[in-house]
Amino acid sequence: MTGEREFIAALRAIATHPAARGLADDAAVLAVAAGDIVVTHDILAEGVHYLPNTTAHDVAAKLVAVNLSDLAAKGARPLAAMLGYTLGEDDWDAAFAAGLGEALARYELPLIGGDTVRLPAGSPRVLGLTLLGSAPRSGAPARSGARPGDELWVTGTIGDAGAGLALCRAGETRSSALIDAYLHPKPLLADGQALAAQVLAMMDVSDGLLIDAARMAAASGLAVQIALDAVPLSAALIAYAGDGRDARIAAASAGDDYQLLFALPAEQQPGVAATRVGSFTAGEGIALSWRGEAIALPATLGFAH
Amino acid sequence: MTGEREFIAALRAIATHPAARGLADDAAVLAVAAGDIVVTHDILAEGVHYLPNTTAHDVAAKLVAVNLSDLAAKGARPLAAMLGYTLGEDDWDAAFAAGLGEALARYELPLIGGDTVRLPAGSPRVLGLTLLGSAPRSGAPARSGARPGDELWVTGTIGDAGAGLALCRAGETRSSALIDAYLHPKPLLADGQALAAQVLAMMDVSDGLLIDAARMAAASGLAVQIALDAVPLSAALIAYAGDGRDARIAAASAGDDYQLLFALPAEQQPGVAATRVGSFTAGEGIALSWRGEAIALPATLGFAH
Repeated sequence: MTGEREFIAALRAIATHPAARGLADDAAVLAVAAGDIVVTHDILAEGVHYLPNTTAHDVAAKLVAVNLSDLAAKGARPLAAMLGYTLGEDDWDAAFAAGLGEALARYELPLIGGDTVRLPAGSPRVLGLTLLGSAPRSGAPARSGARPGDELWVTGTIGDAGAGLALCRAGETRSSALIDAYLHPKPLLADGQALAAQVLAMMDVSDGLLIDAARMAAASGLAVQIALDAVPLSAALIAYAGDGRDARIAAASAGDDYQLLFALPAEQQPGVAATRVGSFTAGEGIALSWRGEAIALPATLGFAH
Repeated sequence: MTGEREFIAALRAIATHPAARGLADDAAVLAVAAGDIVVTHDILAEGVHYLPNTTAHDVAAKLVAVNLSDLAAKGARPLAAMLGYTLGEDDWDAAFAAGLGEALARYELPLIGGDTVRLPAGSPRVLGLTLLGSAPRSGAPARSGARPGDELWVTGTIGDAGAGLALCRAGETRSSALIDAYLHPKPLLADGQALAAQVLAMMDVSDGLLIDAARMAAASGLAVQIALDAVPLSAALIAYAGDGRDARIAAASAGDDYQLLFALPAEQQPGVAATRVGSFTAGEGIALSWRGEAIALPATLGFAH
């Protein structure tokens, strides 16, 4: 229980930006240019968003990454972070602070403030991060901008993190590309910034390609068709699960990809490496095809919370 | 467990500001003018910061008020709020959303985003709020600006909320000025804005006058002397606890006042109603006097967390 002072001291060593005021004031004071500020707040809760045996270092990195992914989806440049932290065992807290410092340094993201609280013993950890970013001059793309005839694209590969989570749950401890994709998501800040002025709609894939595509369609007042056989899979995932129809449905309905999903006018090529996976039409809902034939939707489209 | 959708729907009805994007995007997008943004994040946790029988309505109002008090202490004007919320019983969540809507409307504070999570059953609620504000043109006062010879002032009266908490803990349910002070703190936004250009240092009194004065002194690299008999007490508190030395020590070491504590040059009068309670000198630490005589410090100066 002596740990709070040490934890705050560790945060102070990270929070060297003048806006943080040494974490010794009532609030942070951040100089900004005129324009749009992008603000996101995502929570990671123990037993909900991460397995209890996940290391503090990995939890810290993931907390930073999932929030940065929301900035990436709006094409924003990171400005600053505020941490909401529930204290626990001193060793875990110290490892979290070290991991947080590394993750923030990797993205040149200043920690400028926050709050810590010690919950009653046995309570799950609840870790919140608020990020501020600056929107691109062209404006932060919304989820709602797709039009009938637009095509749906996604960066990278889909389903690796979902398979990594399944491996972790099964007790697999050897490192692999799939487990790495689950434990260490990479926010696609440069891709998001490059795409922002080009896309008509953009979001990150956090809960599953199918459920997130359905959300973009709903926000845009449209229907979306996904060609399951076009969904990009990694060689590691194909080696683990194959690339048959069921494996692809599993990949497209698993969470934690943190790829960017975006709409472009038909025939337009994106400015970053990406794969065309579907298209928008008038109507509502999501439809799947496999080798040109319509197929039924799976029972769950993704992680609904 | 059906309540998350209803809770989000209730938040959407509150979050009508364009920056919120209908709570249907990855992040909020807020237009700001060039200048300093004040950012604060305070958590209220069940069983730590509020008693389990506190109504959801009162918890919501307090979460807004304590965060606004941090903006008040920096002389800032509120711009926007982000909520981090752990879901619980549906009725409580609905009452919280209603109370949040009222509290935000009272201060014309737009809700622009956030995150919700359902913790395992039996977990305490952990409620976080991030506020953005615009700093005064003269700059946001720090805690660290006091100089030797400056005088220490405080707005309002001290100790009411601490007595109100004691009454609530004792099971008192009749409303009274003291309980009201504890349950319904009033962030002093107008006072903070009026004082910002005049003060040399300012903070809010959240953990107790003595501990917070000691923090201002430490941040300024000074010692502070407090005249306990000068500490302003309300008629309600005097009727409840008297105004003897012990009652005043209790008042000055109780938390939740949310008054503004500030340093002014000697002989200067503040632009708002306030009481001079002490002065700064070279050195370190805090010293108390009672009717001109030095007295010992109490065992605890306030709520240390």
